[in-house]
Amino acid sequence: MSTHAETFRALHHASQPLVLPNAWDHASAAVMAAAGFAAIGTTSLGVAAAAGKPDATGATAAETLALARRLAGLPCPVSVDIEGGFADTPEGVAEITAELAGLGVAGVNIEDGRPDGTLADLGERCETIAAVKTKAPGLFVNARTDTYWLGAGDLAATVGRLRAFAEAGADGVFVPGVASGDDIRALVEAVDLPLNVLFLPGRHTVAGLAALGVRRISTGSLLLRAALHAVAETARAVATGERIPTGLPSYEDVQVLATTGA
Amino acid sequence: MSTHAETFRALHHASQPLVLPNAWDHASAAVMAAAGFAAIGTTSLGVAAAAGKPDATGATAAETLALARRLAGLPCPVSVDIEGGFADTPEGVAEITAELAGLGVAGVNIEDGRPDGTLADLGERCETIAAVKTKAPGLFVNARTDTYWLGAGDLAATVGRLRAFAEAGADGVFVPGVASGDDIRALVEAVDLPLNVLFLPGRHTVAGLAALGVRRISTGSLLLRAALHAVAETARAVATGERIPTGLPSYEDVQVLATTGA
Repeated sequence: MSTHAETFRALHHASQPLVLPNAWDHASAAVMAAAGFAAIGTTSLGVAAAAGKPDATGATAAETLALARRLAGLPCPVSVDIEGGFADTPEGVAEITAELAGLGVAGVNIEDGRPDGTLADLGERCETIAAVKTKAPGLFVNARTDTYWLGAGDLAATVGRLRAFAEAGADGVFVPGVASGDDIRALVEAVDLPLNVLFLPGRHTVAGLAALGVRRISTGSLLLRAALHAVAETARAVATGERIPTGLPSYEDVQVLATTGA
Repeated sequence: MSTHAETFRALHHASQPLVLPNAWDHASAAVMAAAGFAAIGTTSLGVAAAAGKPDATGATAAETLALARRLAGLPCPVSVDIEGGFADTPEGVAEITAELAGLGVAGVNIEDGRPDGTLADLGERCETIAAVKTKAPGLFVNARTDTYWLGAGDLAATVGRLRAFAEAGADGVFVPGVASGDDIRALVEAVDLPLNVLFLPGRHTVAGLAALGVRRISTGSLLLRAALHAVAETARAVATGERIPTGLPSYEDVQVLATTGA
């Protein structure tokens, strides 16, 4: 197990929840590392959008591997969103995760949502988690259910999936889309693994989620969407003569970010 | 010559200067296209930073070609920053530009700044421009001198280089780093090709540059730097409990951007 993997695992059991910002390329990851975040995740939507491909359809395996290779040199642990696993069999997914672990990646997210908006067979997902843990035991496997995200299951269904993931060997569980404090508290109590939720602006605060027992807080596509908003707004400001925001990193700052960890 | 190339050429001779925002991946380009910009450029710093490589050293030929392939499907003309040309000979550069033209790219930037901060031999640069125009006559060749950018030459040296570029067949000339109205006016008067300058926040406005006779205004790395600033600021706001900016594109908006022109 690499040092990054050990560090990453410990961050799920610290005094405060792990706030995990999600990057989509080297620059977005390097700027988060420079800002002092303890670890960095990736966002499959971001990887897809950067490449001009659809999200959550398994179309970005090559881009995701290439990104993992780039981020593995960063000075903090990196966890990679591999959607459903980029392969049709548990063994195929395990091969990919072993490759990621070999690059120095600390963790992966594996989801049960499918491109058609339904949930994958639970038994197959558990076999996949078990296969990954056999092939790459040090890798932190964050098992994600899309019950809430896809509106495909209630609290009871979610608990059932998470408990099965835990039994299969997952190291953490992720329920994007869960919003209410009652549901989050119920999930924390029902499952004996670190719970990861997606930060919902206006609904969540880190302090509030920490008080509910959440151990990991992801930003999902939020930072990507903030970046794209800034691009459009700044371009518009140039064209219309409005004030350009100040305090931006300089050309030289970005040159440094570009080769951080290279 | 493709329709995009014809449109792009005409945009240099319209009633208002062409404001050309510079993208570094599909998502940043698609958001600019959606915002209504008539054409889109690329920024080599952005391509380098996204890939975790140094800028302006010729290290990103593969990433630049891959980006060009992605952007060629956008509904507006695209011009690609190819740094010094990604090849050691005029013929090698011409091969690359012909490939770009074949993809549907409307224009390229070719610069004379070298990785060591000096200027390339003027004769060699002119041979390269001529070779590109022979091989890809429809492509808009924007010939860039880094006299100001690298502090490597004064107004007279700049005029000398731009006139030589024009004689070699360039379609436009680019002088990043020129700030003063006097210098810009002198360049417009001295060279009979559309002048492109880099927008300097706080120093330039589109209206002011238009009045000086500038025909094309690039944003360079500005939008990239605004995006990275937004990433860092939004991540910090999540961690500290500050207000998250509103008005961001939604998850669904980004899904649409991800496959624009695919």
